[in-house]
Parts: sequence; structure tokens; C-alpha cells
Amino acid sequence: MPDLDSSDPLAAHRDRFVGSDTPLVYLDGNSLGRPLRVTGERLRDFVDTAWGGRLIRGWDEGWFDLPRTVGDELGRVVLGAAPGQTAVGDSTTVLLYKAMRAAVAARPGRSEIVLGRDDFPTDRYLAEGVARECGLTLRWIEVDTAAGVDADQLAAAVGPDTALVVLSHVAYRSAYLADAPALTRIAHDAGALVLWDLSHSVGSVPLELDAWGADLAVGCTYKYLNGGPGSPAFVYVAERHLEGDGRLVQPVQGWMGATDPFLMGPDYVPAAGIQGWLSGTPPIVGMQAMRDMLALVDEVGMAAVREKSVGLTEHAIAVAADLLPEVALASPRDPARRGGHVTLTHPRMREVTARLWERDVVPDYRDPGGLRLGLSPLSTSYDEVTRGLQAVREVLDGRTP
Amino acid sequence: MPDLDSSDPLAAHRDRFVGSDTPLVYLDGNSLGRPLRVTGERLRDFVDTAWGGRLIRGWDEGWFDLPRTVGDELGRVVLGAAPGQTAVGDSTTVLLYKAMRAAVAARPGRSEIVLGRDDFPTDRYLAEGVARECGLTLRWIEVDTAAGVDADQLAAAVGPDTALVVLSHVAYRSAYLADAPALTRIAHDAGALVLWDLSHSVGSVPLELDAWGADLAVGCTYKYLNGGPGSPAFVYVAERHLEGDGRLVQPVQGWMGATDPFLMGPDYVPAAGIQGWLSGTPPIVGMQAMRDMLALVDEVGMAAVREKSVGLTEHAIAVAADLLPEVALASPRDPARRGGHVTLTHPRMREVTARLWERDVVPDYRDPGGLRLGLSPLSTSYDEVTRGLQAVREVLDGRTP
Repeated sequence: MPDLDSSDPLAAHRDRFVGSDTPLVYLDGNSLGRPLRVTGERLRDFVDTAWGGRLIRGWDEGWFDLPRTVGDELGRVVLGAAPGQTAVGDSTTVLLYKAMRAAVAARPGRSEIVLGRDDFPTDRYLAEGVARECGLTLRWIEVDTAAGVDADQLAAAVGPDTALVVLSHVAYRSAYLADAPALTRIAHDAGALVLWDLSHSVGSVPLELDAWGADLAVGCTYKYLNGGPGSPAFVYVAERHLEGDGRLVQPVQGWMGATDPFLMGPDYVPAAGIQGWLSGTPPIVGMQAMRDMLALVDEVGMAAVREKSVGLTEHAIAVAADLLPEVALASPRDPARRGGHVTLTHPRMREVTARLWERDVVPDYRDPGGLRLGLSPLSTSYDEVTRGLQAVREVLDGRTP
Repeated sequence: MPDLDSSDPLAAHRDRFVGSDTPLVYLDGNSLGRPLRVTGERLRDFVDTAWGGRLIRGWDEGWFDLPRTVGDELGRVVLGAAPGQTAVGDSTTVLLYKAMRAAVAARPGRSEIVLGRDDFPTDRYLAEGVARECGLTLRWIEVDTAAGVDADQLAAAVGPDTALVVLSHVAYRSAYLADAPALTRIAHDAGALVLWDLSHSVGSVPLELDAWGADLAVGCTYKYLNGGPGSPAFVYVAERHLEGDGRLVQPVQGWMGATDPFLMGPDYVPAAGIQGWLSGTPPIVGMQAMRDMLALVDEVGMAAVREKSVGLTEHAIAVAADLLPEVALASPRDPARRGGHVTLTHPRMREVTARLWERDVVPDYRDPGGLRLGLSPLSTSYDEVTRGLQAVREVLDGRTP
């Protein structure tokens, strides 16, 4: 097997991550990315200098704008979104809730939310709750667990009753990469709005939200953006939905989303633009780590990140085919339809995952029988993938190291 | 003037905070507490050891439980709440939204939310939105800006139409300290639920949520709990509202509030107990800093914290009476009715605050004309208060240092 790491132009970046000098094989970057080595010191310095030194003055010196400052960085570096449409804050779940509520309110008289049966649980649970509270029904698109929603399925599901379509850009189990521009067009042709969940694609697959004509998008920053466990999510709202009488209005009317929060006036008047999508005090500490990763992605470029990502998933599939003939690929074989992870199924994979963790080989497991390899492009080496799959072979064979 | 610091049994704890060795006079601990010196290193160590070393395994090794673990610590140390009723996560605003929605849904047929006209903006704005979306109306209690809602006012406002009463325990402008047990009883006698906003009291005034018979409470951790800018808030739901058919149900149905989140099943079934109040992935990094402060408060005890707090506010009022005869006290004179801050009004206070900040004397300002001194008990010295008020004198006199 050729030494893919020695010809990888991004190989050296791996040294920038904590733990890259240990024997640990980490194949779960799509659940929680490794921290950059600079992140710990950045946080300590933030505490002692910014928080401890500037104290409340920090709000006037950049923190107040930080949800939009980092939002614009996300827009430019990873989302394909012009400034003024993206903000950071709240959890992915809370932002999806706000987006769903705003969207269905903007399509009165339409009675359905369309989504995939295999979407990530939070998306499904939220849609179930929003539908109930707003008097809508859910129309499910049945999807094989090794795939995702395609254009024909969506075209058959939407119609004059569709208020909102909720879609995952990369499916959390299969890694199926949706044809976002085509699906967005189909939803729009039916007069519906589209909410993209980018959690499993942002930072590993190039996104072009503006070019897709996306209405709303929400994504997670602790996977491929290395923001740390539970780091705040981001929301994108297309500019055309942020102004005028038809603007989308989110329901959690807090002071940080009000015009002039420090006026503390009698009535809630939503702030202009994406600021109106904020609710409470922004999580400033929680936004620090992702900024280092965004700077690194900016330096490398999303095209190179995607090239490495495809290289890693192709390598994983090739090694698995060679070493693990009894295992099935539950991700698309075509890299053009595959995101940054690979799922391999076998009836014993739950047990295999537990054995691997004991050996410091850390993939993830998802029912049914799926070993999920999340290959964070900038922190994963080809050798790490090979060693991980060799360990799977040994565990399946009952060999202990 | 006696040297109050030399007889202060808590004086030495001030050295534990970043910046206590600088000339800065910090009188805004009720907006953003100073970090403890251990906090920067705790965060760096968290990044390199827990996040970087344990990676996704951290979720199985404590992070998943952390919202409830830290919630129980809050309950024991500062809230007067037995375990199992408190969880950390989301912003204060989002948690207030969830609590308001759950409460009004539990009182069908009742048409009003009662709250004070001078409550913190986020509470008022949220109530306005929740009332509109749920078809209720707001009944305002008119309160002087130098006071807060008292028992007679509340008794006159509640009745058979009252679904929910939203109250601030310490008023953000005046520092008026509400008689929580009495107000809770009045609301309950009318058949209403009570939601306490503890943001301006938690960590400076002892709380006894269980003993009050409180239904719901939400509070902020970046003020007197020193969690850092935008650190996550907490929610308390009394045990009797967490079980059975009549349990309070919050509307943001995310995976972390579902029974067995990693089952990722087809339908949302809310988790038992306070876990059902979570929505998205908990902000683990954001929860770290407050734990050090909780440990310190636990060591000192809330009774001693309150004694120092009363000492500081009494001192501020006495020095102001002496040095600033033209300034009015807009906080209760009776310490039993006053929280941890003091507001002094004068028509020039907006300009005075700006001048003070330039001199590294940092109080806060709130309309109308209020210089707000937030005296964080463990990090503020009596001398700091004296120096701050001397600076106010000099600014009012047009003297520059």
C-alpha cells in the first residue's frame, strides 16, 4: 500500500491537534473534533486577559458583535454565505426550533412539514413538537438507512400543502450527501421553505448556501469545526428573509435580539437583520475555540479539506474491502454523494466498538450494526485509518494485542 | 472611617480573583463576575486533558450527566433545592421561554400572565411573545423604579384568570429583594404557578426554593457565580412538577431531553425528571468556570456571603451619603429588602459612568440616571467601594486625577 500520508499536502497540519503524538486512533471527529494545540492557551489567555482584564467592558469591545463576527467568518470560510446572514449562539436544537417555528409561521395555510424518516433525532423530535403546537402534520420521506433523501423522493413528497422541508445535508448514519441545490429548487417550486441541517457537513464538505438559494440553515460547531463539547451552534437566514414585512421572525424574544438591547425599552422590537435571531446573552467563552479552527480552514481552503476528506473515506472503503470482506458498506460508494464519514455494518459492530474503545481505537457506533468512522480531514492520517481497520479485523477475529 | 477590610473574615478570598492585585475598581460584579485565578488553568487543562485526551469518551465519563451534576451542586450550595430538580444549559432567555411555555400549558383556561412593569427586559419580552403565541394577555404590576413587586400589589393583581406569575427575586435596577415565600403563597392561593428569575440574586442572597414552594426558577451564572461571559443558565423545576400526568412539559423537544438519547428512536418521549428540560447538546466547556466558584461559595457558606454583601451595600450607602449629598438612593434602605447591588441616581450619571470607565473605575449604568454598583461579595473590598465613590465625587466636581 502506498504511503498516502507522505504524499498528503495537508499531513503536517495534524501535528497542530492535541493528541496527534499519542498512539490513540481517533475516528470520531464527526461527533467531537480534537482540540487544536493553541486552544487551551487561547482559553486561558481569554480568561486572564479579556474576561479578567476587560471585564464588563468586553461587551463594548467586541463581545456584543461576536455572534455576528464569528457568523460572518463561518459564512466566508465554510458556508458560502455573504456577511450579515449568520449568527452563533444557542444549541443546534434551539436554533432548529427557532428556524422551524419562523418558517411555518411564514407559510400560513400550508399544513405540512416534510422530512426524512432517518433524519437526526433532534430534527425529527423538534418537527414533531412544532407540528403539534402549530397545528401541522408531518410528511415523512422513507429513506434507506444507507442513503438519504434524493430529488425524486422529495419531488413526490412536496406540494401545495408543504410549509417547510427539513433536510440533512450529510445524513448522520450513512454520510449520504444531498444534492442541495436540486432539493432546494424542488422545495421552492412547491412554494415551501427549506431548512438545511449542516451539522454533519460543515467543515468537511464545501457549502454554498447563497448559491443554493437556501432559506435557513443550522449547524453544529463541535464536530468538524472543533469548537469543543457543546460549543454553540450557528444559524443562517437568507438576506431576503431578514428584511421587510415578510421577514421571518423567531419566537424566543429575548433582549439580545431586540433593537438596542441596552435601551431596555417597554416593548420587544426585533433587531434588524440576523441580530434579531439572537435571544439571550451570547456564549462568548464557548465561541473561542472554533475561531482557531476557522482560521486553519481558511488557511488551507475548503477545496483542499474536501479533497483530503474524499481521500480518507476512499482509503477507508478500500482498506475495509481488503481486510473486512464480511462487512458491508452502508455509505454511498460514489464520493460525490458521500460526506466525511463512512459507515460499515456487521451484526457484531456494537460489541466491536466497545472492544475497540478499550484499545484506544475510537470510532462511533450507530444502530443498526453500524461502525461509523468520522474522518476529520485536518486531524486524521491515512495511517490512523489503516490502524483502526486493522484493529477491527483483530477484534472480529478475537485476537487481543 | 474604620478599616472594614481588616475586620472582614472573607477579605483574603479576594486574592483568589484575577485582577484583585491591580488598581482597577470593579463595581459591576452583578453584570459579569471576575474570573477566579484557577479558572484559566482549569479551562486549559480541560481542553488538553478531558476534551483532548478523552475525546468522545468524555460523554460516557461524566459530561452527559454534567447538566444535572452541576445543577445539583447549584441546588445544594446556592438554591436551597434538593437534588434532581435543577439542570444547567441554554441561556437564561431560552430557559425562561421554556419555563413560561410549560407553565401556561399547565393552566389551561386561565388567560393571564402577571409580571412587573420594571422586570428585566428579557422577561418582559418573552412574556409578551409567549402570551401572543398562546392566546393570553399580560397583566402588568406598576412598580416604582426604586422598588419591586410587594405582597399587596401581587395580591391585587392575581385571580382566577392568572396562569403564571413571573417575578424577579432581586430587581435588576433597584436591587429590591422580593419576599419570595409570601409572594409564592399569594400566587398559589390564586391557583397560579410562579416562575422566579434569580439572575440578580443567586450567589449573593441565600435562596430556599424548596422551602418557598417555588414552582419554577431560572437564573444566570455569569454574575455572582463567575461562570464567564455568556456562561449557561440553570433551570429549577419543583419535583412535584416533574412526574406524573400533570408534569410540566417544555416545548423544545431535542434529543438530550429524550428518554435514552442514544437510542435515537422514532418518537420523542421526554426523559423522566429534570433531564426532560434539556434540549440540545449541553455546553460542557461553558460549565467549567462556575464549578470553581460554587466550590468557593460552598467553602465560605451563603450566610457569610450574604453578611459580607450586606456589609458592602451598607458601606456604599454610608459613603455615598457622606461624599455625594446631591445623589439619591434608588435602592431600598432596609438591607432586609435589598440584594447585592446599590443604585444611586443623579441626572449626570450616564456621563459620570463614561468618565469613571476611562479611569479604571467600572460600575454600571441603567436608565433613568442610575449608577449601579454591583458588589460581588467575595471579590470586592470595602476599600474598593470607597475608592469608587471618591472617584464619583471627583468626576462630579470636574476634577481629573
